[in-house]
Amino acid sequence: MHIELLTIGDELLDGMTVNSNAGHIGRALDALGHRVMRVTTVRDIPAEIEWAFRAITARADVCITSGGLGPTVDDMTVDGLMAVAGVGFTHDDVAWANIVRRYADRGVALQDIPPQNIRQARRPDGGELLYSEVGTAPGVALTVGRCRVFCTPGVPREMKWQLERYILPALGPSPGDWIRRIVRIALVGESSAEVKVLAAAVPTEVEVGWRAIDSEIEIKLRGPAEAVLAAEQQVRAALADEQIGEHPDLATATLAACRARGWHLGAAESCTGGELGGAITNVPGSSEVFNGSIVAYANTVKMGVLGVDPAIIETYGAVSEPCAAAMAEGARRALGVDIAVSITGIAGPGGGSPEKPVGTVCFGFAGPDGTRTETRWLRGDRALVRRYAVAFALNGVRRHALA
Amino acid sequence: MHIELLTIGDELLDGMTVNSNAGHIGRALDALGHRVMRVTTVRDIPAEIEWAFRAITARADVCITSGGLGPTVDDMTVDGLMAVAGVGFTHDDVAWANIVRRYADRGVALQDIPPQNIRQARRPDGGELLYSEVGTAPGVALTVGRCRVFCTPGVPREMKWQLERYILPALGPSPGDWIRRIVRIALVGESSAEVKVLAAAVPTEVEVGWRAIDSEIEIKLRGPAEAVLAAEQQVRAALADEQIGEHPDLATATLAACRARGWHLGAAESCTGGELGGAITNVPGSSEVFNGSIVAYANTVKMGVLGVDPAIIETYGAVSEPCAAAMAEGARRALGVDIAVSITGIAGPGGGSPEKPVGTVCFGFAGPDGTRTETRWLRGDRALVRRYAVAFALNGVRRHALA
Repeated sequence: MHIELLTIGDELLDGMTVNSNAGHIGRALDALGHRVMRVTTVRDIPAEIEWAFRAITARADVCITSGGLGPTVDDMTVDGLMAVAGVGFTHDDVAWANIVRRYADRGVALQDIPPQNIRQARRPDGGELLYSEVGTAPGVALTVGRCRVFCTPGVPREMKWQLERYILPALGPSPGDWIRRIVRIALVGESSAEVKVLAAAVPTEVEVGWRAIDSEIEIKLRGPAEAVLAAEQQVRAALADEQIGEHPDLATATLAACRARGWHLGAAESCTGGELGGAITNVPGSSEVFNGSIVAYANTVKMGVLGVDPAIIETYGAVSEPCAAAMAEGARRALGVDIAVSITGIAGPGGGSPEKPVGTVCFGFAGPDGTRTETRWLRGDRALVRRYAVAFALNGVRRHALA
Repeated sequence: MHIELLTIGDELLDGMTVNSNAGHIGRALDALGHRVMRVTTVRDIPAEIEWAFRAITARADVCITSGGLGPTVDDMTVDGLMAVAGVGFTHDDVAWANIVRRYADRGVALQDIPPQNIRQARRPDGGELLYSEVGTAPGVALTVGRCRVFCTPGVPREMKWQLERYILPALGPSPGDWIRRIVRIALVGESSAEVKVLAAAVPTEVEVGWRAIDSEIEIKLRGPAEAVLAAEQQVRAALADEQIGEHPDLATATLAACRARGWHLGAAESCTGGELGGAITNVPGSSEVFNGSIVAYANTVKMGVLGVDPAIIETYGAVSEPCAAAMAEGARRALGVDIAVSITGIAGPGGGSPEKPVGTVCFGFAGPDGTRTETRWLRGDRALVRRYAVAFALNGVRRHALA
């Protein structure tokens, strides 16, 4: 099945908005075994939208669009589709009632609804509307020639809702026994992971894909079911230490490992400035495990709140394993936790020296069995060094809890 | 000038990678007054790449590609371009020397360089290479018919470097007197900002664009120079309170306002879990102003480290203005700062009640002139409530410092 996406909007072409919708749809289809063949992005110009619909409906079996379903005159997707299909429209009472209700929920009376919203209640002749429960814009489904066209709004939340409610069920899983499996790993450079996967001798009929999300990597295996399942076993064996397991991300995996031990977790952060706490508390329910973090950016806070001995900072510097150890122990004490992790490093761009270049980060882990420290030299800009440091700290806690 | 982008790679179509390169190039061109007309994304399949080059070079003046310049057999961009142009290639000594040197820097000897890397030293006949100082893959420039084609790597850092070094200078600014101006504002819902901008009666020849970045909004004005400058004045007047000014983001603006007062800044965070500290320390040089933050996720930490009176939590709850005031005062004391901001709220999805629904967030500002508190009811999911809370806290500090 030849599937194409059409994303519509000046903001995508001017770089005001990243085209995350195309990625989301591609990923959702890929999970069903379908593949998006091409993505085309055009401006909010009637001639451009018509050109795209004409070209795509002539060659594709399925066309999914996003954008241009709003109420304003810039929203031309339905007009373009109707022009290419050569059809008119009728006013749809259900769609209009939904629009009226959504305005009423926000306290807007019927007579105060912007008149242009009535454009969102147009149903192209021969087509169906994909009624929305999360916005005023219904989607549209219409067959043009041999091509089934689905139009969704550009607002990601509304697009995703319609995709899951209407479009994915309409497409169903791809015929054939191809499957996709994903192995999620933490904090291994892509190249070293690649070497390990290749060493695991994945059979050639299995496609291997990568997706790096900050400091986590998803390895995607796709192909005939039997070969993929065998390859998955091989890859999991080769990467046993780095796997996050079945958890959606490293922070969730770390919290689960602590919870399994009955541990409460705390932190002391310098160069990450609170990002470690932010990553942990991004997980709903993290309060059952996580007590808090001392963001000790200034040395006075390291000494005053965490109780780091000034002599340690004078002798070894704030970015040192002795300081990381003292920070972790101070956080364990101040926060009343079972295990505390500390991060102190040089994220850059300034602050580096020949002995301690930018990217030098020291970690401390203070737990029931004492304190351990490690130093890493992380590569990347300020943001990347901080993200890697957060991931390394989380993974260290996870490993301590699993040990 | 008709400009199109071509982005190449299975990972873009399968949603393993978001197509941020297209957005980046669009934004860079827009800043010069150029507009990207269309973006096409195709798979790493020779026939697809050739189809795209054939179609785009027949209709565009400029085609900029990204992706498919790596050393492996999946990297087919140059092959596709040469096939459509009908040209061969010669080995380029400068490009090869660059590849050898980059490997040598990583301790790889000549005989250990993967043999397929020699593909990256191919210079299409009649074209030029865009030598890279940040990667092994040179870009390619070649004129096909009336279309000037520029090929860049898919790695964002390498693409950006070649774009700025070679392609933007080659295009130069767009002829004509169209200009773009951006007004950056904090923490106003897009719709309310829109109302204010419309109320400012922007002349119709000025295009108004929006870009929401978390809780900041960029308003883009584009059109004839005179009208845009007049519109910018109107918009700035209408949005005087919300403007971040000339700073790149709200955290930077907040730090600058504190620095101007000679203030040191600290924080106490509950529901944001460290994200406020993370946002502040994302700014290089923030250590001159920011001492640290106490992430008091558990009530025991609010009491133990921040010294919040247990009676306050028992009487009013942890999400209350009295608790926010006590947290801010405790942080001001513990961190030794001039102004401390506190955040305590219910980010969801759990924890809400009829009196304090999800999204209820209390803020405290403890400064040299005493302590003030505020409560906000923020809308959105957990991540959005947290981001808005961080922005509201930053903006509150900024306004205190400017007062």
